[in-house]
Amino acid sequence: MPVVLVNSNYLKLKAGYLFPEIARRVKSFSAEHPDAALIRLGIGDVTEPLPQACREAMKAAIDAMGTPEGFHGYGPEQGYGWLREAIATNEFQARGCAVDAEEIFISDGSKCDSSNILDILGEGNRIAVTDPVYPVYVDSNVMAGRTGEAGDNGRYGGLRYLPISAENGFAAQIPSEPVDLIYLCFPNNPTGAVASKEQLKAWVDYARAHKALILFDAAYEAFIQDPSLPHSIYEIEGARDCAIEFRSFSKNAGFTGTRCAFTVVPKGLKGQAADGSEVELWGLWNRRQSTKFNGVSYIIQRGAEAVYSPQGQAEVKALVSFYMENAAIIRRELSAAGLEVHGGEHAPYVWLKTPEGLDSWGFFDHLLHKAHVVGTPGSGFGAAGEGYFRLSAFNSRSNVEEAMARIRRLG
Amino acid sequence: MPVVLVNSNYLKLKAGYLFPEIARRVKSFSAEHPDAALIRLGIGDVTEPLPQACREAMKAAIDAMGTPEGFHGYGPEQGYGWLREAIATNEFQARGCAVDAEEIFISDGSKCDSSNILDILGEGNRIAVTDPVYPVYVDSNVMAGRTGEAGDNGRYGGLRYLPISAENGFAAQIPSEPVDLIYLCFPNNPTGAVASKEQLKAWVDYARAHKALILFDAAYEAFIQDPSLPHSIYEIEGARDCAIEFRSFSKNAGFTGTRCAFTVVPKGLKGQAADGSEVELWGLWNRRQSTKFNGVSYIIQRGAEAVYSPQGQAEVKALVSFYMENAAIIRRELSAAGLEVHGGEHAPYVWLKTPEGLDSWGFFDHLLHKAHVVGTPGSGFGAAGEGYFRLSAFNSRSNVEEAMARIRRLG
Repeated sequence: MPVVLVNSNYLKLKAGYLFPEIARRVKSFSAEHPDAALIRLGIGDVTEPLPQACREAMKAAIDAMGTPEGFHGYGPEQGYGWLREAIATNEFQARGCAVDAEEIFISDGSKCDSSNILDILGEGNRIAVTDPVYPVYVDSNVMAGRTGEAGDNGRYGGLRYLPISAENGFAAQIPSEPVDLIYLCFPNNPTGAVASKEQLKAWVDYARAHKALILFDAAYEAFIQDPSLPHSIYEIEGARDCAIEFRSFSKNAGFTGTRCAFTVVPKGLKGQAADGSEVELWGLWNRRQSTKFNGVSYIIQRGAEAVYSPQGQAEVKALVSFYMENAAIIRRELSAAGLEVHGGEHAPYVWLKTPEGLDSWGFFDHLLHKAHVVGTPGSGFGAAGEGYFRLSAFNSRSNVEEAMARIRRLG
Repeated sequence: MPVVLVNSNYLKLKAGYLFPEIARRVKSFSAEHPDAALIRLGIGDVTEPLPQACREAMKAAIDAMGTPEGFHGYGPEQGYGWLREAIATNEFQARGCAVDAEEIFISDGSKCDSSNILDILGEGNRIAVTDPVYPVYVDSNVMAGRTGEAGDNGRYGGLRYLPISAENGFAAQIPSEPVDLIYLCFPNNPTGAVASKEQLKAWVDYARAHKALILFDAAYEAFIQDPSLPHSIYEIEGARDCAIEFRSFSKNAGFTGTRCAFTVVPKGLKGQAADGSEVELWGLWNRRQSTKFNGVSYIIQRGAEAVYSPQGQAEVKALVSFYMENAAIIRRELSAAGLEVHGGEHAPYVWLKTPEGLDSWGFFDHLLHKAHVVGTPGSGFGAAGEGYFRLSAFNSRSNVEEAMARIRRLG
């Protein structure tokens, strides 16, 4: 008797995705302590109002949609030309990167893009991720059947894990054995570490030498403070031949609830088909997006475009400064509380060592129950994240100050 | 030497997706005839202004996003509860369907959902599609490696094609051999045909008897005029055990450029894992959306919610009436021009037989060059669509009238 078959790879996934698990624990605590004033420094979600430039541009777009002349139906699946041009000019060409508007694909999120990218890649690639790592890179590979089963330490067979910790300065060692696909994220989620040009160059050189592909997640580039640090992997010579880059409006312009992001697929970047022929990835991604995606809302794209207006740029700069001041407060207060802190200098995340005797989830429960502060357990990002804890700088100033005061009172 | 492997299944795809190919021909014609006033009745894209109720709700949401209290960051990946509730109440419970808000997943498009759904289904399912068919159902299966190569007639190995034509009243025959996955679309794109309760019941009975899954695309349900016809497959007893339904705000509320849709996955609906165990599809889809999707913009969801306000309902009703009057005009004028017409009575598409001596692309070029009217060749939807042609009722009244006058002048 026939019966519809499901994708059994989903059954390999361990427990819930990290953030739903945190949500469950918080919900349970709140149910028992309805009066506790929780401060959430867990999920990396922005809190400050959307820039006025973006709001006005979206409202103007809505007004246009109310007229026969200004109405917009289906847009290009790749995004409107005016937004792709604004991004190419401001994000790349202004930094000396030869990225063309045609190479930019507008989407509704980097999470979507960094998992959907597997659609155009084949089976059998040897895949490297850092440990700790943004869980979506791993889970999307598990769901696509590109891994084996999970072991007791939560690591999946078939993936090559590159540990990053205080011991190696949060810089993953370039693998000695060959890999075909490498996920890199700088500024790093969750550790807040950042890569120098020299470090990125070493990865690009490796990828070019081995015809590997780098999936470079630069969602947090706006938080880089040191002008000598690269914002895009395309600042490294040769990266166009070996890298796809993911970018987002979520964290710079506060679009986590508004939804707009983009992915850069350079023309000329190639992979290999099963028959040994070379295939351009740009064409594959263009086809994927044309067939399986309908483009981002016209209204939202107009809001994203306004990020590049003078007012939008000033507002984004102010938002970034605001959150980075939060990060500085968190670093200072945690250090004063005797904790070992990392990150938070070019990234909105502070990555701290949990105190003696508490593992990551133990410290999570400790902070939740004793300080009513929600953070993210490092072990949720991978086995090598055990003994670490992530605090996000995304919150109001008063909440950050209050959270730090509570943590300092804990001693 | 290692090298990154691509998904070679993409190389099986025939030429471009239908609508890009049309766009190419139109662009080329326009370049040669810059003064020709083209009327586009090809792609099913709405043209009338967005309802005021939706626009006002979105502007209010944007204003809220400009305040600390009203700011919304990441929302639930499944969509906001208030929108899921409004949909469950108005679209399903009001029609006697036992669909709960939790079973509704808000998304940015039915094209996305109806292709992404393959993520949670396994390899080895026997798949049935109608011919002609909405190309995304086929292409997404090709890209996911669920088909063989294309033959000379454009049909892919491994898919079971169910012909629909004037000869069988545009009602696909239920397959005699077993299938596991069945794509149905009513009101139908491209033929404009609609299914009666008895016809849907036959499919549901078949699917339940064979433990098959129906993927039911009801994106055009708002255009049904006869109150005895079903809008949702869940109006058929037993459908909760065998069907997933795709719905959209694109065509009823004119959201093609605004982007909001939803998918219904009933709890209790099951498939089989490789080890023979039963697995609930709701949990798999929930996991897929949580990991690979970030939810729809808060602003857009507020706009979709306003569709269910009294004003929104009145505006949607007026939009549907407007387009259906266009469809009636198209039917009447084409019949008067001596053409055989189908559809257009409960759907915004008229499906006509091409005149003697012209195949589908021949008629496309004929209309483009002689009447400056853009339609869609039936053969673009499948081999059995050859000799047919689709005209869309989505345009202004004056454009529809002018297009029909030009076609009548052609003789």
